[in-house]
Amino acid sequence: MSDGGVSVSTLLEGAIGKCCGAPVRAPLDRAEAQEVAGLLRAVSDPARLQLLSIIRSADECCACVADLTPALGLAQPTVSHHLKVLTEAGLLTRERRGHQAWFALVPERLEQIGRIFA
Amino acid sequence: MSDGGVSVSTLLEGAIGKCCGAPVRAPLDRAEAQEVAGLLRAVSDPARLQLLSIIRSADECCACVADLTPALGLAQPTVSHHLKVLTEAGLLTRERRGHQAWFALVPERLEQIGRIFA
Repeated sequence: MSDGGVSVSTLLEGAIGKCCGAPVRAPLDRAEAQEVAGLLRAVSDPARLQLLSIIRSADECCACVADLTPALGLAQPTVSHHLKVLTEAGLLTRERRGHQAWFALVPERLEQIGRIFA
Repeated sequence: MSDGGVSVSTLLEGAIGKCCGAPVRAPLDRAEAQEVAGLLRAVSDPARLQLLSIIRSADECCACVADLTPALGLAQPTVSHHLKVLTEAGLLTRERRGHQAWFALVPERLEQIGRIFA
C-alpha cells in the first residue's frame, strides 16, 4: 500500500524507492542498527547518562560504587542496578579491587554511538 | 550504606564523593540528562535508526513515507508508527505536500545526542 498515488511497483523498481524527485540512499546496515539500538536502550535513562558522564570524567575513566552513589543522590542498590545494565550492554567493564567494585568505560562503545550522531 | 569500608560521612564531605584517590566530577545536569534520555528512548530501535540515516542522507534531509517504506522493507503502517515516535520526540518535523507526508530532520536534536557521546 502506498501513501497516496505512488504505486508499490514504481517504488520497488530499485532496491530503494524514489519519490517526488528526492534521492534516497540505502539505510544504515540492519546488523549495525540492531547493535547500536541495544547500546542506546542501555543509555536511555537519566541516571545511566549521569553515571557515564561521571565515570568518563574520572581519572582513567574509572570509578567505584562508593564514589558514584553519593554523586547521584540515589540509593546504592539503584546505582548498582544501573551499573549492571551498562556493564551487560558492554559500555562498562567491572573489576573488583579489595572491597570495592570499580567500573571503567569501554570507549569503543561510546564511539560506536557517537558515529551515528556525529 | 557504603560498598565496603568507606563511611557515608566521608563520602558526603564534599558534594561529590571521593574514594580510593580517584577524583570524581559533578555529573551531567539532571534536566539535560532527562531530556537526552527521552531522545535516546526514541532512537533506540533499529528501524528508527535506519529511518534517521535515510532521511539524513536524503536531499535537504527530507524524505516522504512512500520513499521510506520500501527502503526499510517494512509495512507502511509500521514505518508510519516509527516516524510518529521520532516526530513526537522532536527529532523530525512532519509536513504535508499534496498526498505525501514529508519528514525532515531536526539537526539540533541529533547534535544534542552527539554532544553526549562525542
